[in-house]
Amino acid sequence: MAAELNRSAIDALFRRAFREDAPYGDKTTEALGIKGTGSGVFLAKQVLVACGVPAALRAFNVADPACDVEALVAEGAIVEPGTVMGRASGPLPALLLAERPALNLLQRLCGIATLSRRASEAVAGTGCRVCDTRKTTPGLRLLEKYAVSTGGAANHRMGLSDAILIKDNHIKAKGSITQAVAMAKSSSGPLWRVEVEVKSLAEFREAVAAGAEIIMLDNMSDEDMSAAARERPHGVVLEASGNMTLDRLARVAATGVDLISIGALTHSAPASDISFKIEPLTS
Amino acid sequence: MAAELNRSAIDALFRRAFREDAPYGDKTTEALGIKGTGSGVFLAKQVLVACGVPAALRAFNVADPACDVEALVAEGAIVEPGTVMGRASGPLPALLLAERPALNLLQRLCGIATLSRRASEAVAGTGCRVCDTRKTTPGLRLLEKYAVSTGGAANHRMGLSDAILIKDNHIKAKGSITQAVAMAKSSSGPLWRVEVEVKSLAEFREAVAAGAEIIMLDNMSDEDMSAAARERPHGVVLEASGNMTLDRLARVAATGVDLISIGALTHSAPASDISFKIEPLTS
Amino acid sequence: MAAELNRSAIDALFRRAFREDAPYGDKTTEALGIKGTGSGVFLAKQVLVACGVPAALRAFNVADPACDVEALVAEGAIVEPGTVMGRASGPLPALLLAERPALNLLQRLCGIATLSRRASEAVAGTGCRVCDTRKTTPGLRLLEKYAVSTGGAANHRMGLSDAILIKDNHIKAKGSITQAVAMAKSSSGPLWRVEVEVKSLAEFREAVAAGAEIIMLDNMSDEDMSAAARERPHGVVLEASGNMTLDRLARVAATGVDLISIGALTHSAPASDISFKIEPLTS
Amino acid sequence: MAAELNRSAIDALFRRAFREDAPYGDKTTEALGIKGTGSGVFLAKQVLVACGVPAALRAFNVADPACDVEALVAEGAIVEPGTVMGRASGPLPALLLAERPALNLLQRLCGIATLSRRASEAVAGTGCRVCDTRKTTPGLRLLEKYAVSTGGAANHRMGLSDAILIKDNHIKAKGSITQAVAMAKSSSGPLWRVEVEVKSLAEFREAVAAGAEIIMLDNMSDEDMSAAARERPHGVVLEASGNMTLDRLARVAATGVDLISIGALTHSAPASDISFKIEPLTS
Amino acid sequence: MAAELNRSAIDALFRRAFREDAPYGDKTTEALGIKGTGSGVFLAKQVLVACGVPAALRAFNVADPACDVEALVAEGAIVEPGTVMGRASGPLPALLLAERPALNLLQRLCGIATLSRRASEAVAGTGCRVCDTRKTTPGLRLLEKYAVSTGGAANHRMGLSDAILIKDNHIKAKGSITQAVAMAKSSSGPLWRVEVEVKSLAEFREAVAAGAEIIMLDNMSDEDMSAAARERPHGVVLEASGNMTLDRLARVAATGVDLISIGALTHSAPASDISFKIEPLTS
Amino acid sequence: MAAELNRSAIDALFRRAFREDAPYGDKTTEALGIKGTGSGVFLAKQVLVACGVPAALRAFNVADPACDVEALVAEGAIVEPGTVMGRASGPLPALLLAERPALNLLQRLCGIATLSRRASEAVAGTGCRVCDTRKTTPGLRLLEKYAVSTGGAANHRMGLSDAILIKDNHIKAKGSITQAVAMAKSSSGPLWRVEVEVKSLAEFREAVAAGAEIIMLDNMSDEDMSAAARERPHGVVLEASGNMTLDRLARVAATGVDLISIGALTHSAPASDISFKIEPLTS
Repeated sequence: MAAELNRSAIDALFRRAFREDAPYGDKTTEALGIKGTGSGVFLAKQVLVACGVPAALRAFNVADPACDVEALVAEGAIVEPGTVMGRASGPLPALLLAERPALNLLQRLCGIATLSRRASEAVAGTGCRVCDTRKTTPGLRLLEKYAVSTGGAANHRMGLSDAILIKDNHIKAKGSITQAVAMAKSSSGPLWRVEVEVKSLAEFREAVAAGAEIIMLDNMSDEDMSAAARERPHGVVLEASGNMTLDRLARVAATGVDLISIGALTHSAPASDISFKIEPLTS
Repeated sequence: MAAELNRSAIDALFRRAFREDAPYGDKTTEALGIKGTGSGVFLAKQVLVACGVPAALRAFNVADPACDVEALVAEGAIVEPGTVMGRASGPLPALLLAERPALNLLQRLCGIATLSRRASEAVAGTGCRVCDTRKTTPGLRLLEKYAVSTGGAANHRMGLSDAILIKDNHIKAKGSITQAVAMAKSSSGPLWRVEVEVKSLAEFREAVAAGAEIIMLDNMSDEDMSAAARERPHGVVLEASGNMTLDRLARVAATGVDLISIGALTHSAPASDISFKIEPLTS
Repeated sequence: MAAELNRSAIDALFRRAFREDAPYGDKTTEALGIKGTGSGVFLAKQVLVACGVPAALRAFNVADPACDVEALVAEGAIVEPGTVMGRASGPLPALLLAERPALNLLQRLCGIATLSRRASEAVAGTGCRVCDTRKTTPGLRLLEKYAVSTGGAANHRMGLSDAILIKDNHIKAKGSITQAVAMAKSSSGPLWRVEVEVKSLAEFREAVAAGAEIIMLDNMSDEDMSAAARERPHGVVLEASGNMTLDRLARVAATGVDLISIGALTHSAPASDISFKIEPLTS
Repeated sequence: MAAELNRSAIDALFRRAFREDAPYGDKTTEALGIKGTGSGVFLAKQVLVACGVPAALRAFNVADPACDVEALVAEGAIVEPGTVMGRASGPLPALLLAERPALNLLQRLCGIATLSRRASEAVAGTGCRVCDTRKTTPGLRLLEKYAVSTGGAANHRMGLSDAILIKDNHIKAKGSITQAVAMAKSSSGPLWRVEVEVKSLAEFREAVAAGAEIIMLDNMSDEDMSAAARERPHGVVLEASGNMTLDRLARVAATGVDLISIGALTHSAPASDISFKIEPLTS
Repeated sequence: MAAELNRSAIDALFRRAFREDAPYGDKTTEALGIKGTGSGVFLAKQVLVACGVPAALRAFNVADPACDVEALVAEGAIVEPGTVMGRASGPLPALLLAERPALNLLQRLCGIATLSRRASEAVAGTGCRVCDTRKTTPGLRLLEKYAVSTGGAANHRMGLSDAILIKDNHIKAKGSITQAVAMAKSSSGPLWRVEVEVKSLAEFREAVAAGAEIIMLDNMSDEDMSAAARERPHGVVLEASGNMTLDRLARVAATGVDLISIGALTHSAPASDISFKIEPLTS
Repeated sequence: MAAELNRSAIDALFRRAFREDAPYGDKTTEALGIKGTGSGVFLAKQVLVACGVPAALRAFNVADPACDVEALVAEGAIVEPGTVMGRASGPLPALLLAERPALNLLQRLCGIATLSRRASEAVAGTGCRVCDTRKTTPGLRLLEKYAVSTGGAANHRMGLSDAILIKDNHIKAKGSITQAVAMAKSSSGPLWRVEVEVKSLAEFREAVAAGAEIIMLDNMSDEDMSAAARERPHGVVLEASGNMTLDRLARVAATGVDLISIGALTHSAPASDISFKIEPLTS
């Protein structure tokens, strides 16, 4: 997205974060009468994939435009413990206010990028790619999908409005895979291909016959996925989905599917361990 | 919080979620011409602590006020796999639209409540309580803290505005624990007690001498925490913090501290596994 | 204004008030575990002009739509101490949350209406009317002007967009009253008459010669205002302004001016004394 | 609060003020075709305590970022009539637009600061402090409380979320002072002390016995307040409340209470008399 | 889009419309003291395609929820002059307030639907479809695209986020059609087909060779478009664009293109002539 | 309106436009990996009256503050085909994002200004002026009225809040023109003149007798309008309204009316033909 739109979405996120964290300001800083300026750094405390450093640094600019910030690692870089990832300088009250919301975002995005990289590495060299889902935190869809791609995995559709994906609940509503795929192909316009979810080889064959162009194999065995991969007509794309744990990925990729979608990349990535250390400069 | 304020915050969250998930509506449902009504249920697929069922059901009301919803398990209840946790009925397009945002919230809140309960159980009967931190997802502070308490753990302060907590960065800015505690006690008014973070027994003793009423023992050994607990004057409250993994909690509680704060309750709880299954009723 | 627009502006005001008064809800009510329902009444504790009772009662509906409210005095009525002005019933947490924001609005609006009525009574029977100014609290313009008219005084323009009033700073910018009035008359269109502020009889005469249709006599002596009233051409309206204290109003009205504008009606009216008493019904 | 958060809240206030004052812009300035630049000053027209000058000057920056502004008196300074308190330079249309909203805020904040200072001076040297209440204008809580502290009085809690204060309506809901205080002490966590309101010496004694740490003496006689002050255990804080007029403050302070809370500081302070005078520079 | 999301977007549009049309309410209705209830109807004054009647009627519900509304013609119906298209009953001030914003929306949407129908009829039976563009009024994208489809024409992509369309400015940035199409195909994922704009037969052939799946023929002659249609490989979709006036459509359709996109459907459709007539019922 | 208020309203319009056009950013630009900077120009492709060039250029600043923009024609200038109207330079992704929303606004405002100029020229030299109505696009009232005046026509009232205009629906509600005009004159205050709509000479005479100061002649014949113009008392202003097509204007002006109001200026002006051409500078 254009830099500024991105930035204003992030700034809005931090304004919401400040409203929930400090509706009346920072009582401790005020009670202590802390003034003056300082400088603080993000310090990695584990191996992680850096993601969201410029975004997290916006917290300081939003708290006070007098802050200067600098990212010190590239987005997507693998970072060793002890690495200084970024720096913010400015009025101490702003540093103290922005520190926690900045870390809350940064730790989550690094956590997602780190997990996405591990998942991507598990299928490296196979021609299969790992991708994300719509299982993201409400309000953080774009940022979490950005973290997935920063970690080297692919983004599936952004949401309900930008692609066609016929899932089990749609099929029930239309009566059959055949009917649903036919209807989608005739009415959705030439710009979009039609993806459909299937749960068995029989359903897979029905989807192929109906002309589905992308087929999501949901919770199917490795054997059935291999069979589907062998049978599929030229040009049909296969996506494996459902219970895709890290240790299974290499085997799933070996079935010949093109994509493996993993909800856990965004909904269950543990936060990366990062701290923020401030040095007062003036008082 | 008063029911309605809560509700309007949740509704606003889902409106943001719909804007990011479906800025132009649900292209698949529209391409398929899905109409009619249906009924769907939240189905637990693992053992979990139920949390946020009424909140998650608001997604359906926000998507279409014609939806009827019903929570079928109590907040805080331990739920077995296969349990129907809640039900939403109404126009199929609304069910299909609201399903994913509803699950995204529900799975996260159940995940936090489930982890909070496990942590609380680890210290049950010790007189020590587990509590949360400010390490929450930007925009979800109140909901995530609600999930912590639903799981049986305690809430620490809500944010920077409602309590005094002097941390390492404040102490650096003021020069010493003694100065910081003295300043806070004299200027913060009678309504609030003063908490201060210390990193060693020496700092603990300085904090006690300065009159701190609550002392956070940050990343201290069990031995040092035991010593602090023995030494503390009557009425001084001790909070253990830093790297508090589940397997360590019983030992930490045995040191005699009053509170153990755990950031992972909110920042690293894996999402609970829950699905939403729709049955069409009319078309 | 149409009832609903009014209502949504008032509701938005109370939502802002709740955000600033209870960003995390009502800690006391929650600590006490207060549940159940109750009923509360607004009780006048002095003689006052009732104003804003239905508006203030919206606080309860906004806090919880389950509340029932009822205004028990007419807007503009003179109310004796001890009068029950309105009633709200519903969940106790909602009553306790809404009580103070409701009173904060009600006491202010009754205060303005009460002062406006005293000022209007001071000129009753003279053919002269008291009116308000733009000296209102930021964010409360419409409500405060409503209180002025409820108290029986007139509303001057609502703001800068709905009428032409050439003040001292405009005249300086244009060079002279003559030039400013001529320019305004030629360019402002037929729907608006042109008002101009003058500070002396000489300026008054210049304004008349320039064709001003309404003339504000700013900080002029009663003698000079009398002279202006005698001299003015048929159809020219005179407004007295500046330091218009209550005890002066009858004398000013006797000079023959048509309007007396008083900033203090809105910027310095003391709040009326009103309390809210709750009776629990169920627990 | 961090400078920028403060500033953005003030800017939002002025944007609301401009929307209500000039939804279609300034018809007079446009009809007169006023262009060019100028410079204007805030001029004190009475003795007052300066408060909100930098805040009020934001109106000019919001109206047009091309404006330059400068505060010329310190916040909290006692200012004599005729003092130039601040200056704004820039495009004349922006000066004319921002003048009234700026003054509306400045006159109110100076009014509150001036009254707060008079109240504080009435108890100077007694060890007792005057403080504010939650009786503030909807939407202006933080600014009005800032004015109170600028005038030298103390701030009580900011709202319902940051402290525990058990009032008459809570006590009715819980049945007794004893029950309410016990419940609050056990459930509110170690960070907050518990304050309770009492209306008689008997209630005071019940509150002490229940372990209340701060006791608000509501509408009690000076004699009873003196008795309470004599009787209170070490460490219990006393707050006098209810009908605390300026002439009574010295006597109330002499009873030995620690705090006197006065709603009138914010709800009934008369606006200070200040004008804004513009000199055109270019046209 | 789900009914309610649609409705809330429309309601937000009318709230904005009321703010710009009546920031202080309806001065005329207030000056006349109009009260009581009435009933009003939308009356077609020309032949038109009905579109947006339920949407326009929301204006009355937003102005006052006490209004009852009823659409009396089907969306998409061809309506004769004199037809009553819809009815709104309720408080007269609400009818008078909502009338003009409702008509402003309704006349525009009917205008677009009417023009879209005329354009669609011009190619009826040819297998070619008319569609819209992104040339819509800022803030009205979804409603205007809805009007296009109500008139029987097709919707192209909703915006920049839901499809791939490589236009002249993109090609310049990438260097060539070949490079741009190749890049888009490799990086955009399987869910989207790639459309590219060409301005000549040579460019068309380059686009085909590059593997473009949809080709927009921009401002090309009918002869060249016919040649492109003859040459295109199976499955490649052709869209004619640029200066597509109504009288040209049949000839363009005869060239064999699949789609004709017309910006004028949304940016230059004249408003349909519709009035709103009110009958007072009570006063 | 003060420059900045204007600017922030325009910026808000573009933010809404970006949200509807690119909720997830620009998929094509991202798929192509377009980076680097460029420069683009607005190019007139027909004769038109320039209007909104600075406003439209804000789209680029909103998309990315790093953009530099420059208007190259004066507002209101008559522009020949091929004229470069403005220029924007900056990051290519921002240029590609802002191009269409900028054009959508610019083409509409130029279209309105161009039509307004043609209408004004049709009555040039007659002493009669053309003016607009409230028939504007929801959300664009101020900008469209600005385009009317840029084209040389006059603005009627901005909306319901800034003037008194008694229309047919008001008259029905009050019973008669006589009653409505009398009521309005007595209650609307001295700042506003009273306008009333009439549909016949008889109604015109009733309006004159009632003291109406401005009379709108709605859908009356040229003969009746001439009669009204001859009969009107000194100072009464006449406005012709209803079905005022361009070819009729000279004849209507010749009847002696003062104003001719034309809804089509804003609701049916065809968009002007303007393109935006980008040259890449760096990549």
